[in-house]
Amino acid sequence: MRVVPGLKPLRKGEKLAILMPGMGAVATTVIAGVEAVKKKLAAPVGSLTQLGHLLEEDGRPGPLLRDVLPLASFDDLVFGGWDPIPDDVYAAAVRAKVLGREHLDPIKAELEAIRPMPAVFDKEWVRRLDGPNVKKGSLREKAEALQADIKGFMERNRCARGVMVWTGSTEVYVEVGPAHESLKAFEAALDRNDPTIAPSMIYAYAAIKCGLPFMNGAPNLAQDTPALQELAEREGVATGGKDFKTGQTLMKTTIAPMLHARLLGLDGWFSTNILGNRDGEVLDDAASFKTKEVSKLGVLDQILSPKQHPELYGDIEHKVTIHYYPPRGDNKEGWDAIDIYGWLGYPMQIKVNFQCRDSILAAPLALDLALLADLGQRAGGKGPQEWLSFFFKSPVTASGKPVHDLFQQQATLHAQLRRFAEAAAAAAKSAVG
Amino acid sequence: MRVVPGLKPLRKGEKLAILMPGMGAVATTVIAGVEAVKKKLAAPVGSLTQLGHLLEEDGRPGPLLRDVLPLASFDDLVFGGWDPIPDDVYAAAVRAKVLGREHLDPIKAELEAIRPMPAVFDKEWVRRLDGPNVKKGSLREKAEALQADIKGFMERNRCARGVMVWTGSTEVYVEVGPAHESLKAFEAALDRNDPTIAPSMIYAYAAIKCGLPFMNGAPNLAQDTPALQELAEREGVATGGKDFKTGQTLMKTTIAPMLHARLLGLDGWFSTNILGNRDGEVLDDAASFKTKEVSKLGVLDQILSPKQHPELYGDIEHKVTIHYYPPRGDNKEGWDAIDIYGWLGYPMQIKVNFQCRDSILAAPLALDLALLADLGQRAGGKGPQEWLSFFFKSPVTASGKPVHDLFQQQATLHAQLRRFAEAAAAAAKSAVG
Amino acid sequence: MRVVPGLKPLRKGEKLAILMPGMGAVATTVIAGVEAVKKKLAAPVGSLTQLGHLLEEDGRPGPLLRDVLPLASFDDLVFGGWDPIPDDVYAAAVRAKVLGREHLDPIKAELEAIRPMPAVFDKEWVRRLDGPNVKKGSLREKAEALQADIKGFMERNRCARGVMVWTGSTEVYVEVGPAHESLKAFEAALDRNDPTIAPSMIYAYAAIKCGLPFMNGAPNLAQDTPALQELAEREGVATGGKDFKTGQTLMKTTIAPMLHARLLGLDGWFSTNILGNRDGEVLDDAASFKTKEVSKLGVLDQILSPKQHPELYGDIEHKVTIHYYPPRGDNKEGWDAIDIYGWLGYPMQIKVNFQCRDSILAAPLALDLALLADLGQRAGGKGPQEWLSFFFKSPVTASGKPVHDLFQQQATLHAQLRRFAEAAAAAAKSAVG
Amino acid sequence: MRVVPGLKPLRKGEKLAILMPGMGAVATTVIAGVEAVKKKLAAPVGSLTQLGHLLEEDGRPGPLLRDVLPLASFDDLVFGGWDPIPDDVYAAAVRAKVLGREHLDPIKAELEAIRPMPAVFDKEWVRRLDGPNVKKGSLREKAEALQADIKGFMERNRCARGVMVWTGSTEVYVEVGPAHESLKAFEAALDRNDPTIAPSMIYAYAAIKCGLPFMNGAPNLAQDTPALQELAEREGVATGGKDFKTGQTLMKTTIAPMLHARLLGLDGWFSTNILGNRDGEVLDDAASFKTKEVSKLGVLDQILSPKQHPELYGDIEHKVTIHYYPPRGDNKEGWDAIDIYGWLGYPMQIKVNFQCRDSILAAPLALDLALLADLGQRAGGKGPQEWLSFFFKSPVTASGKPVHDLFQQQATLHAQLRRFAEAAAAAAKSAVG
Repeated sequence: MRVVPGLKPLRKGEKLAILMPGMGAVATTVIAGVEAVKKKLAAPVGSLTQLGHLLEEDGRPGPLLRDVLPLASFDDLVFGGWDPIPDDVYAAAVRAKVLGREHLDPIKAELEAIRPMPAVFDKEWVRRLDGPNVKKGSLREKAEALQADIKGFMERNRCARGVMVWTGSTEVYVEVGPAHESLKAFEAALDRNDPTIAPSMIYAYAAIKCGLPFMNGAPNLAQDTPALQELAEREGVATGGKDFKTGQTLMKTTIAPMLHARLLGLDGWFSTNILGNRDGEVLDDAASFKTKEVSKLGVLDQILSPKQHPELYGDIEHKVTIHYYPPRGDNKEGWDAIDIYGWLGYPMQIKVNFQCRDSILAAPLALDLALLADLGQRAGGKGPQEWLSFFFKSPVTASGKPVHDLFQQQATLHAQLRRFAEAAAAAAKSAVG
Repeated sequence: MRVVPGLKPLRKGEKLAILMPGMGAVATTVIAGVEAVKKKLAAPVGSLTQLGHLLEEDGRPGPLLRDVLPLASFDDLVFGGWDPIPDDVYAAAVRAKVLGREHLDPIKAELEAIRPMPAVFDKEWVRRLDGPNVKKGSLREKAEALQADIKGFMERNRCARGVMVWTGSTEVYVEVGPAHESLKAFEAALDRNDPTIAPSMIYAYAAIKCGLPFMNGAPNLAQDTPALQELAEREGVATGGKDFKTGQTLMKTTIAPMLHARLLGLDGWFSTNILGNRDGEVLDDAASFKTKEVSKLGVLDQILSPKQHPELYGDIEHKVTIHYYPPRGDNKEGWDAIDIYGWLGYPMQIKVNFQCRDSILAAPLALDLALLADLGQRAGGKGPQEWLSFFFKSPVTASGKPVHDLFQQQATLHAQLRRFAEAAAAAAKSAVG
Repeated sequence: MRVVPGLKPLRKGEKLAILMPGMGAVATTVIAGVEAVKKKLAAPVGSLTQLGHLLEEDGRPGPLLRDVLPLASFDDLVFGGWDPIPDDVYAAAVRAKVLGREHLDPIKAELEAIRPMPAVFDKEWVRRLDGPNVKKGSLREKAEALQADIKGFMERNRCARGVMVWTGSTEVYVEVGPAHESLKAFEAALDRNDPTIAPSMIYAYAAIKCGLPFMNGAPNLAQDTPALQELAEREGVATGGKDFKTGQTLMKTTIAPMLHARLLGLDGWFSTNILGNRDGEVLDDAASFKTKEVSKLGVLDQILSPKQHPELYGDIEHKVTIHYYPPRGDNKEGWDAIDIYGWLGYPMQIKVNFQCRDSILAAPLALDLALLADLGQRAGGKGPQEWLSFFFKSPVTASGKPVHDLFQQQATLHAQLRRFAEAAAAAAKSAVG
Repeated sequence: MRVVPGLKPLRKGEKLAILMPGMGAVATTVIAGVEAVKKKLAAPVGSLTQLGHLLEEDGRPGPLLRDVLPLASFDDLVFGGWDPIPDDVYAAAVRAKVLGREHLDPIKAELEAIRPMPAVFDKEWVRRLDGPNVKKGSLREKAEALQADIKGFMERNRCARGVMVWTGSTEVYVEVGPAHESLKAFEAALDRNDPTIAPSMIYAYAAIKCGLPFMNGAPNLAQDTPALQELAEREGVATGGKDFKTGQTLMKTTIAPMLHARLLGLDGWFSTNILGNRDGEVLDDAASFKTKEVSKLGVLDQILSPKQHPELYGDIEHKVTIHYYPPRGDNKEGWDAIDIYGWLGYPMQIKVNFQCRDSILAAPLALDLALLADLGQRAGGKGPQEWLSFFFKSPVTASGKPVHDLFQQQATLHAQLRRFAEAAAAAAKSAVG
């Protein structure tokens, strides 16, 4: 997405709808965080759009991003979403145990005002969850109901633009099949209630049909099928990659580039994760984990380029496991045992114990993706926004060849942001002139 | 060093002298490694010049560096050096316990043939070491003896060019003083045996006077004083930064850029090291450790730019300690406890346990620096070669503002290497034409 | 202390004064915990007297200790103490940041009612602390003022018995000197303001003179000098060992017995600690740390008996370091790197990362020691109560040969408790009969 | 086994056969170790019988065990065994990669002289292994062939006594079924080739029939069924528990007793293991792992007695996983994340990373069990030798209530060894008298 033809300026006071399927730990943490920041109770730590600087070509920090990019401001955001559990956002946030009462109670009224719309949900796709707040009917009817939800929400809240960010659970693993090969096949599959159509695909379909960019925080097959890419192209809608890059993969795509930069060999990389939130419970189901595993395993190959370095990376044992472990709650913990070797093949070891918080790391990514997807779409972006790879475990790219190296992703992201900033500066100038 | 005027081509069979003050664990590991690789007993893992690819501007790997850069080949290297302990390289390598007998014994003859020249050594500067193989006389006489050593070595071994890489111990801490302010002051200080002139400075002086680039593997104040920079400028000699970036600092300058890229806050970073080699023993002396500590502490500030991010990095508790712990020998181990925070300030922790090998990590850096310094000098480089920052804990730069972020350093390095490759390709073309 | 002649029974409603010099993190956590448990807000986890069972000779759990031992009950405890900072216990607890508001606020009134008496304090002995709430006068006057404090407190609160538990900071290191050799010398030293008399000794002197057992939670030289042992013997007062066994030493005296039981060899044990509370700040002072270091280093030798096992434990590298690291607050963290070897000498490693909480671990020990010291004294114990070794980093014993193995300590403790239980049962029987 | 009626003395020069089914990593490490120790090339580290002292009742070390117990000496041991792979012990040891050439080469001749007899082996029971050196025929014929092997071996090697120690792989999980309920049922099952009769049971049957004690190093159901216990009782043969206590369980049964001693609560204990040896490969098969998992999970409950302490241990999340990870070879690595809580319920964490060596830890246990089982049998022991619980992950006891606490096990073991020592001393006295 090199061309930034006419970056549409923001009109003052125009609202942006951020709609999230799955209003659990991540979505409630996003919303509560934005409200808390608005009340100056806390800082939006971890958010590139709120705290980041534009990096110059030589890597030195330039101006604050939000000073040079026309991004929606917190006051212009309106949050909504869907969930099978009908709790309002305050109740759901308390249940999620991510944020403490000292952060939730001062914004209780704002959070209670947001209630999830009935979800498109199917236990076949997320076996460990359930709830009563669900849509009935055929897949086609559900798709249409979602579109009506979106339009109704935007009208009610007078939103000029919208973005959808999937913050729901990981679904059962599925590969691209006949029903996903073309838009026509997809719509026919909707009509016949095809069992290979996942709820997340229906959300993506509805979002794109309504002109909303779709960003996917989980590793599900959703917007990234030929069918929906065809739709996004036709509708001129920006789409993103999938699975927020947090925790262990964030660390892995940080350390592996160092090994590669320094030509240190790698024998094996063992990664285990323990977490006790809803996501952990879902991933304890082998079928859901398979989806995640595929998303997690690919990263080393791209970063290390074993073809160029068979003597260093030609035979890596790479294992990833996730275990549901309730004592931790949302406080995910990863342990990596990395077996490397140096000069003349002498072995060394790196162990990393990352005691992180799943939703605390994911929330600013969801927010940044919403604001940047909106920016990208206003700049004429349609289909996969490769420059957003920085945020995803599984970036989706036009070429099909994702980059996983965090620092290459960062360079690509900032190169694009510099283009946006130039376009914005030019537009401002011509407006003045 | 952007300009690469007329990169001097290599003549076939021309020898390059690699002279190392301090022939302990690192120097013997370099030499044994090169011999082992020549005999195809092992691979030069960790060496950019031997296994690395040129990175294209977009970060994708291009051709092998040694295919596109006119670097000295292993067959053209001649090793020598100085040490207060008169053991030959085989005996010193056995004592250092870095490499196993299966690597040393097949190259015993080659290693036994190399014996250290008498060293410029002073217990005042490295309190925990001693040895009989030392030069006598005034500082001026020692400086002249070193120059005679260098010239003699190069003649005896028919070397067309030479490089000096300091692989000796860390000296006692000293700041730039009157004796280091100008070449004139320095030479006067030599004449009066000024106690602020460290042995490493005398080596640097001798090397530069003989036209040899000087690369510093320890954090000593040596080539990086106004006096010796003046000399390097006058003599047209390339110099480097200091203190090989291995172990914990390598890891720190890998992980800190991720925190910065993701705008994650940092409360504190506690780093401890245990090692049981000669370096560990030397650093157990507070005066020597002070030199190292200064070298290690600065890196976070540059990477995190607290001025731009007072809310994230304005109040970091950064502690670094090193402990001499003999059970480990050369197998250095670092433990980092990193206290970060995310969205709304929620705390998280990263622990890194790096069970590395000091000399195994340092040896390929010493080799790469020798070959690249030689290349840089042939390309007309003089004074601090900023593009070599990638290899140093304390890069020395003309501006005085070093970059520590490993990935920024990598980008700068490869940009320069691309320029060399282009110049080499152009030269080859014109030679053919 | 094998004989339990006539274990004095408890009279219903008799009060026990628990007086603590140093009302910082530990003391406030003890008091707040007892109040919270009384209000059923929390459980006295970690307290042997409250939750423990008597172990039978074969190690199987028997009845609850408090069902078979005549221990003072929570309703009969009255807390008091001294501190140079005049804050009440609520304010001090909030400042200590050990317990959360959800535990402190419901018992605010009870905590605010307790204010420290003016302390015997001298910056020479604890360099990093200071405060205005201090006694003036000569050492002799201070000792007398403390005795008046004790008597006044017990009268005001109608306490039949009392115990003193040192919960103050670690003082500067000092060895037994002339002033500590006999009671006569000690009292003469008080009279001449001898600089080798530490505040903790004056507290111990005052306590014992008033008939109160003295238990020492820090490693200071206090009750354990010939002078004060003489006094304790004369007054028939029980004394204890010193330095609560929490954190790293607790772990060390757990793991070392396993190595010994399994005849696994030990090359080295590196222990580092980071903590950010007042204790951490005090121990960052080399003179105070020396006191702690001596207390921590001895344990391995006793447990491993190198004389019996020179081939396994004859040459251990044992290092202990403590670093003040404010981001942690009271949440002490220890990292141990343990280098062991097995069959034929093959090396293995154990790493332990203990993320503990200093005062949370210490508080139940302080409580248990108060209740058990009171029990021991009622049973006629005087001088060092060796059976309490279980609770101390540095047990004080009559023989001068402390046992450090946690499980041997546990066996000794429960053997004594079984004797108490039998005596109590016999007394109850004869009372009934 | 309290009674030690007439401990049969050792006659000088009498040989003891140590027969091991499964001559892989553990068995070859035992044999090579004994030979290396005999040649004074290495020390029998980790072996209680060789380096241990008798502990007095108060826990203080007494005389060397081998000075006061009539144990077979190294010179009187004759090793043999069975394996489906026909390699001699030298070849098998080289393949196992446990010991280095510096230990194996000086004893090559001794190791090459020992070749495994054809094994009773069935891929249905150990799916990941195979080999040609196997017995044919019905189960009954195999059982008889094993007995013939044992008798032949003992005759050929003039052994007065023998012991069998299972050092083979973990078999597929099976529960006690009809075929194992009585000796009669078992023999009938042998006759009809019942599929619930595992190879390990046939070895145990043959050993006991020949009067050899059977010690089980793996968690298989073997000697510990009613059928074989009946046989052991009838034949007067000592049997042991199962699964050598090494690595993670050794650590767990060390740390859990500390939590219990100190009344610290436990929320969860997550244990993961990576290992790359044959055992790791076998355990990667879910059916074999099930056997191991059952063996590993039980230990916490016994140690912590949740019935006595519902508030501390009533709801523990205990997970154990094992992953086959080839880069490690025999160097097993365990990582434990332990979630504990203290005073008022405040949470703390312990992480243990045990970088151990599977066979290095197991070999001395196999040796000790052979020597002690022989001693126990000579003292009239028959059936489960509970006093040997110290060595097993799953002790087998007459009562069915195993003790897992390492230190209770140690106390029980030494109490029994003191009885043996007294009997031996008495016998020696009466022999002299």
